[in-house]
Amino acid sequence: MLRLDAGIESERRAAAPSHLPLTGVVVVDLSRYIAGPYCSMLMADAGATVIKVEPPRGEDTRSLEPYVADIDGSKVSAYFLRMNRNKRSVTLDLKSEPGQRALADLISRADVLLENYRPGVLARFGFDQERLSALNTGLVYCTISGFGHTKTPMRDRPAYNVVAEYEAGVYYQRDPNVAPAPIGPPVGDLFPALHALGGLLMALYRKAVTGQGGRVDIAMFDSMLSLNEIRSSYAKLYGRDWDPAAHPFYSPYGVFPVRDGHICIDVTTDPQWRGFCAAIGRPDLYALDGMATGPERVERFDSHIKGPLDAWLATQDRDLAVATLTEHHVPSAAIRHPGEALESDQSHARGMEVTVRSSGGAQVSTVGTPIKIDRWQDLPIHAAGADLGADTEAVLREVAGWDQAAIDHLLGRVLTATTPSEGAH
Amino acid sequence: MLRLDAGIESERRAAAPSHLPLTGVVVVDLSRYIAGPYCSMLMADAGATVIKVEPPRGEDTRSLEPYVADIDGSKVSAYFLRMNRNKRSVTLDLKSEPGQRALADLISRADVLLENYRPGVLARFGFDQERLSALNTGLVYCTISGFGHTKTPMRDRPAYNVVAEYEAGVYYQRDPNVAPAPIGPPVGDLFPALHALGGLLMALYRKAVTGQGGRVDIAMFDSMLSLNEIRSSYAKLYGRDWDPAAHPFYSPYGVFPVRDGHICIDVTTDPQWRGFCAAIGRPDLYALDGMATGPERVERFDSHIKGPLDAWLATQDRDLAVATLTEHHVPSAAIRHPGEALESDQSHARGMEVTVRSSGGAQVSTVGTPIKIDRWQDLPIHAAGADLGADTEAVLREVAGWDQAAIDHLLGRVLTATTPSEGAH
Repeated sequence: MLRLDAGIESERRAAAPSHLPLTGVVVVDLSRYIAGPYCSMLMADAGATVIKVEPPRGEDTRSLEPYVADIDGSKVSAYFLRMNRNKRSVTLDLKSEPGQRALADLISRADVLLENYRPGVLARFGFDQERLSALNTGLVYCTISGFGHTKTPMRDRPAYNVVAEYEAGVYYQRDPNVAPAPIGPPVGDLFPALHALGGLLMALYRKAVTGQGGRVDIAMFDSMLSLNEIRSSYAKLYGRDWDPAAHPFYSPYGVFPVRDGHICIDVTTDPQWRGFCAAIGRPDLYALDGMATGPERVERFDSHIKGPLDAWLATQDRDLAVATLTEHHVPSAAIRHPGEALESDQSHARGMEVTVRSSGGAQVSTVGTPIKIDRWQDLPIHAAGADLGADTEAVLREVAGWDQAAIDHLLGRVLTATTPSEGAH
Repeated sequence: MLRLDAGIESERRAAAPSHLPLTGVVVVDLSRYIAGPYCSMLMADAGATVIKVEPPRGEDTRSLEPYVADIDGSKVSAYFLRMNRNKRSVTLDLKSEPGQRALADLISRADVLLENYRPGVLARFGFDQERLSALNTGLVYCTISGFGHTKTPMRDRPAYNVVAEYEAGVYYQRDPNVAPAPIGPPVGDLFPALHALGGLLMALYRKAVTGQGGRVDIAMFDSMLSLNEIRSSYAKLYGRDWDPAAHPFYSPYGVFPVRDGHICIDVTTDPQWRGFCAAIGRPDLYALDGMATGPERVERFDSHIKGPLDAWLATQDRDLAVATLTEHHVPSAAIRHPGEALESDQSHARGMEVTVRSSGGAQVSTVGTPIKIDRWQDLPIHAAGADLGADTEAVLREVAGWDQAAIDHLLGRVLTATTPSEGAH
């Protein structure tokens, strides 16, 4: 295996040394799959040292399809490479005493501990809240779980994103004959990942001000309730469900077909309504009575607006229609394929399409950080998720402060030597 | 108008004085609608002093339906009350010189300035980047806009959540005959709100460590690309789109009808597959050849799994089916209505249903913060979005440091008096 990513890392540091807001922050990251790794990816993008601690067999998503090939032909998970960019990989067997000792030493020197085990699992490895506080009073300890760590009816249920999404009513459909269907993105993972990021940064801020650590307990279910607040409040106030495809107050609103695809139109204000009428070549509509407010136009859409709009749409291609509406300051959108969106001029102008490159030369296109701070923008190439255990020695030396004998013992290089406790402490 | 909310505020402070992680952080919040206000709501929930600066007519969402009634019968926007809980309201006419002076004095004493105008609007009020830096070198200035503040093809386009969602491919559907439809929650507002929260807290952390301010530039479009990363990367690697209703690697996976509704099942690991077979009373399925991996089960779902599963589902009610699957450690979910979810035992056990109470006595149910830090939980009652301008005097005095003469002048109470500049400085 080549080690190209060391080169990328130094390019990266050279390009933006003082701009990274989390430089110096050490995150011990035990998280797997999406919710935790997306949170720590954004921290790594912002300069934090993220130490991904994996079991000796590697985190499960190392064997998640789709795969791409390194230069030597070996298959690596594209998913893993993308989601774990800019992180260091340390392998520890947390069921073993030396592995637990190494983790304890990392935690004692970390700012943040992030994990998304089910509640109670980390305690079984010897790290309950009391031990963590004893190891590091300033530690920010953040967990992401399906239903939270406090005592609740659902705490111990296994949960993936869809479980939290459906239980919280995110994909509920009013028609009992239609099966609820998710949209593509796993909002049940990504939204709680961002609540976790917000929570642990709040606690990290307080730590910077007061020295006090903190405990952040994010439940995917809670996060989905928050995402769904407008619908649940609407339902409670009105006794009926919000129709996500229509809009009770705005019109014209929605997705409409054009000759080569679909566009979205979202007229909210009076100037936008005037602009819309001009854009479709029917300024006379704006002068009609009973069309001044959104609710009035919702009521008269079928009788007064749909006909002229359909006639205009039938003559339009997607991009030109959106350009015309934009010229008249009407919020509108081309309905794009996800791949087209990522490769668009707009995406590239914001530095949003980036490539991650593995140590073995595999390259995968992915999405850069949307958190743009100062003049710092994504480099076009990032170090991909590291080879399994690539940084174990370096991290134990640099972060945990272990000497070579202790490291060799942990790695099974020395059969009889000083005990780890003598070496490590 | 009664002023009940002062009582709530003191209850709140008494209940959790030292636990709030953002106590002492001052946020000047010019944002409107959802993306900015959701971000600052989470900061207010965490103890920040959020000063909502509104035009004299009030922020637009004060007149957004649905309405609820105060005790005296006057109508107030439930939406506004919910989204602006725990914030202070200051009215300033930013087109006037005294209004601009007041804003300048607030900014010079703030930690964070948050706004979601279109790029260039705040500069037209006299607050470009240079002026902001001159007013406050430690300021964290965070903007949320459709396409970001840097020079890009789409920068000046008007954008609501749906514009960013569709342009980024979040709701793209592969079938050209099916119009893409949004799910209920405005992910195009709420997801960037959380990227903004993460970005401004990163910058706030750096400010605490180095004293240096920062500029955070969040584009709703960038945020939607990040949300959609799994789909766009999949499309680029495979040349075809991810089907969000199925799963290419896991099985059984999806939403299935039972006698009284729908449930979701998400079998990923081998123990879950074994548990599933036991739960539906068909442990023999687990012993069959060619069913050991997810992709194998995806291929054989129709021929080997669907029949036994359908037979079981036909005998099941929703909650009992989920209980049975849960007993066998199979990730599963009841498909719930948003209102049912908010009122569930699980929601209540996490303190997720809260009430906001306006100064005039209107009460609305809403969702508490999903960011749970330390032992602090939501109080069951919050102060709702404040009356328009309720805190103008107090904030100008306490935060901007103005004296009474300057405040009276701003409020038009004194016709000839000391000039504001003499009074204010």
